[in-house]
Amino acid sequence: MDRPPVDGAPLDRRAESTLAEQIAARYAHRIRERTLAGGARLPSVRECARRHAVSPHTVVAAYDQLLAQGLVEARRQRGFFVRDGRMGDAGESGAAHRAAGARPLPISATALIRGMFQPPGGRPMPGLGTLPADWLDLPLLAGALRKVSSGAQLGALSLQYGDPAGEPRLREALARKLAGVGVDAAAAQIVTTVGATHALDIVTRSLLRAGDAVLVDEPGWSVEYARLAALGMRVLPVPRGDDGPDLAAMERLIEGSPAHERPRLYVTVSVLHNPTGASLSLQAAHKVLQLAQRRDLLVVEDDTYSHLAPPHLPRLAALDALERTVYVSGFSKILVPNWRVGYLAAPARLVDRFVDTKLLSTLTTPALTEMALAHCLEHGLLRRHVERVAAKLAAARARTVRLAEAHGCTFAAPPRGLFGWVDTGVDTERLAEALHGDWFIAPGALFHAVHRPSTLMRINFATSQDARFWRALERARKQHTTGQRRRAPARDAALIG
Amino acid sequence: MDRPPVDGAPLDRRAESTLAEQIAARYAHRIRERTLAGGARLPSVRECARRHAVSPHTVVAAYDQLLAQGLVEARRQRGFFVRDGRMGDAGESGAAHRAAGARPLPISATALIRGMFQPPGGRPMPGLGTLPADWLDLPLLAGALRKVSSGAQLGALSLQYGDPAGEPRLREALARKLAGVGVDAAAAQIVTTVGATHALDIVTRSLLRAGDAVLVDEPGWSVEYARLAALGMRVLPVPRGDDGPDLAAMERLIEGSPAHERPRLYVTVSVLHNPTGASLSLQAAHKVLQLAQRRDLLVVEDDTYSHLAPPHLPRLAALDALERTVYVSGFSKILVPNWRVGYLAAPARLVDRFVDTKLLSTLTTPALTEMALAHCLEHGLLRRHVERVAAKLAAARARTVRLAEAHGCTFAAPPRGLFGWVDTGVDTERLAEALHGDWFIAPGALFHAVHRPSTLMRINFATSQDARFWRALERARKQHTTGQRRRAPARDAALIG
Repeated sequence: MDRPPVDGAPLDRRAESTLAEQIAARYAHRIRERTLAGGARLPSVRECARRHAVSPHTVVAAYDQLLAQGLVEARRQRGFFVRDGRMGDAGESGAAHRAAGARPLPISATALIRGMFQPPGGRPMPGLGTLPADWLDLPLLAGALRKVSSGAQLGALSLQYGDPAGEPRLREALARKLAGVGVDAAAAQIVTTVGATHALDIVTRSLLRAGDAVLVDEPGWSVEYARLAALGMRVLPVPRGDDGPDLAAMERLIEGSPAHERPRLYVTVSVLHNPTGASLSLQAAHKVLQLAQRRDLLVVEDDTYSHLAPPHLPRLAALDALERTVYVSGFSKILVPNWRVGYLAAPARLVDRFVDTKLLSTLTTPALTEMALAHCLEHGLLRRHVERVAAKLAAARARTVRLAEAHGCTFAAPPRGLFGWVDTGVDTERLAEALHGDWFIAPGALFHAVHRPSTLMRINFATSQDARFWRALERARKQHTTGQRRRAPARDAALIG
Repeated sequence: MDRPPVDGAPLDRRAESTLAEQIAARYAHRIRERTLAGGARLPSVRECARRHAVSPHTVVAAYDQLLAQGLVEARRQRGFFVRDGRMGDAGESGAAHRAAGARPLPISATALIRGMFQPPGGRPMPGLGTLPADWLDLPLLAGALRKVSSGAQLGALSLQYGDPAGEPRLREALARKLAGVGVDAAAAQIVTTVGATHALDIVTRSLLRAGDAVLVDEPGWSVEYARLAALGMRVLPVPRGDDGPDLAAMERLIEGSPAHERPRLYVTVSVLHNPTGASLSLQAAHKVLQLAQRRDLLVVEDDTYSHLAPPHLPRLAALDALERTVYVSGFSKILVPNWRVGYLAAPARLVDRFVDTKLLSTLTTPALTEMALAHCLEHGLLRRHVERVAAKLAAARARTVRLAEAHGCTFAAPPRGLFGWVDTGVDTERLAEALHGDWFIAPGALFHAVHRPSTLMRINFATSQDARFWRALERARKQHTTGQRRRAPARDAALIG
């Protein structure tokens, strides 16, 4: 994919294209990339002119070009707005248009992830979803890979399709690892996947059909919302508080559905919830499972971020003994993001169905990296790495919390784990816009099932230790406070307890 | 996954379980594994008794156990049949049951693939879908992997998410490779995937919704039928002749659908079609594209098997210049099955949508193996490997054809490429059943969208050179000819020209 022109970079005043064309091209790119949402307002003409050091006339010319391209629309006395549903229509014709136009992805679907792949100017990314590369242990990975790619073993792992459930050695090692957090799963109950994302995809595709309702945490992970929406499912957001989901609200959502349209599945992050960092108490976990029993729900427990959690925190799958729980996790957030190794552990009765869906989606998964990770687990290398990262993260968290508070931010949930859930007091989409090109942040709107303004943002404690970021954020906040006063977005604090 | 008890192996007469229990357990396993289809008839009591050298009384006791377990049903004067829809009910309860029971996979979905993972007794598998491991070039792969996993490069490929469209070096190399078969695709039009299976999955998920109609070749690849069915799509099979699809039949299928339910997509293998080995002529390719234009179809061209084809054979994506064609291929059938690297090349207007679906299904793909394959392409290693395999395959094909014909089989399509489409004269599901435990064959029923008897089977020329296989097959054919005469299955020969 082409890199987008960096929005914050200065215009090229000696280029063949005019300044208006350059400005139009940048917005057009971001609209196509969906980092600017349908319905989003472009900066005012005056603000845009100031930002690019051009005359208002140049900006009007640029916006006129976007109008002519059908990318934005003018609303009387309110300014220019990105047209809704644009991706369904963009240059499409015929079959593909009709086929896909009917169900465009929510705009926030991939904006956050796309951001992850486009580090602005190489600076740390406070909105990053993973550990930064220099916190990971390359020699450990190189050693493990070398270990499993000697001649004959490389052949056995590469030259024929592996076990459709995944490399048996890794599944054995995972069964032992899961026992360590109280989850009693046989290797035969474990299926490896292309990262935890693939595991969640397999589970929902196997068990639900288009039109089915699914309960999810809100705030929560936008990729999960986007996938469910893309599969045609009805997403029912359950407010997630600091001590667990709002069970009364969950009951109301279930009661509110006609009997044959009741939700069958609840997807949740129980430990170090993304983005709030909250974890279920033992009592809350028990209540969730009681409700699941009463309402005949299957619970999908996404445990992706929990390597860095204190070991005593309860997993739903441990309490429930994998009866009506499917456990999902992976190695992207602790060891190696781009080997794409994840897994699920499921009730025995569901395993075959998940293996079948895996076969239909990717046939098998690469055994080479799975075996390398088995080696890491078998030799205790993961455990030691986790200990080193946890110590480093504790220090980073303490420093980041000080910086955030010194620059006028508060924490909407107690700081824990990798992510902080920060209240900035102003709409964080506006802040993301203002900082774009310098710092990538993850605005709160990306953690809601339905797009709406939010004063919250998610930060990564490991990548938010640069005081320059917090100063830039404070400047942007102050600039936006005036405009904000007139029409303040609803604060999300209530949602998280 | 547990290995199934090998059906052809003798019963254990000193075991703690009775002979009836052992026979029942073997059938139960195969029903659960779905290598015995819902609706399939169990052997007659007399035949089963003969096969296992037990008394008919023992067989009746075994079948009674299967009846009691709800796995089979007795039909008056016709015998015992595997119960339909069994997987939807198997030990299920509650949410998952209701959710998934409504749409069980077709039974043939994974039977063929499961077979690939369970080589019977280590003998060559005539029904195998890939090149056998000892035809592949392990030193070539080991060298490429070593080349890209030196310290810094391993870090760049592993420690952060890669480009969501896939490793740029591989996409550049693929663009050059595609130019070699006349397909003019920029690297920006190429998206890497977890094997070609994943590419096909991404395309259908992105462009269609449950209930949509899809045109497919018949005979064709059962995993494709199964995936479409699992996604809730209506599969419209188009008879595939030796010189291309039956366009008149395709028109009738389109005309026969109400206007708003017309198919939008046609999925086809244009070169070295699986299982017939047929390739489109230039004229036929032109006509397919004319029909696609007239009927506003998008064509998905699965070019997975074409490495071994003569270079002059036309691709639809070449003629069409990727206007209304999506091209899909991969490396599993020529270089390395279990690295799981495939790709698609698409019209520019569709690329973003496919990248988004990839993000929602697996986030990214592993850059390590993608870079190793880029190395192979850049240094001409793939091309030289293909030349060696092609020469070896030509010899294997000649030998296999001689053996097949000497043992009374005919070829329903001229022998070409990796697969032979062999007419045995008797129902090949019965043959597969009779040979089970000794030889894995791919019965013709697995290549039909709707399960029905077929006298055809697909063989892999590289793995069918063992004269013992052809002798065993001839014996089995003769045994089944008598029973066959009364109710011969429709021969499929008409379908393939």
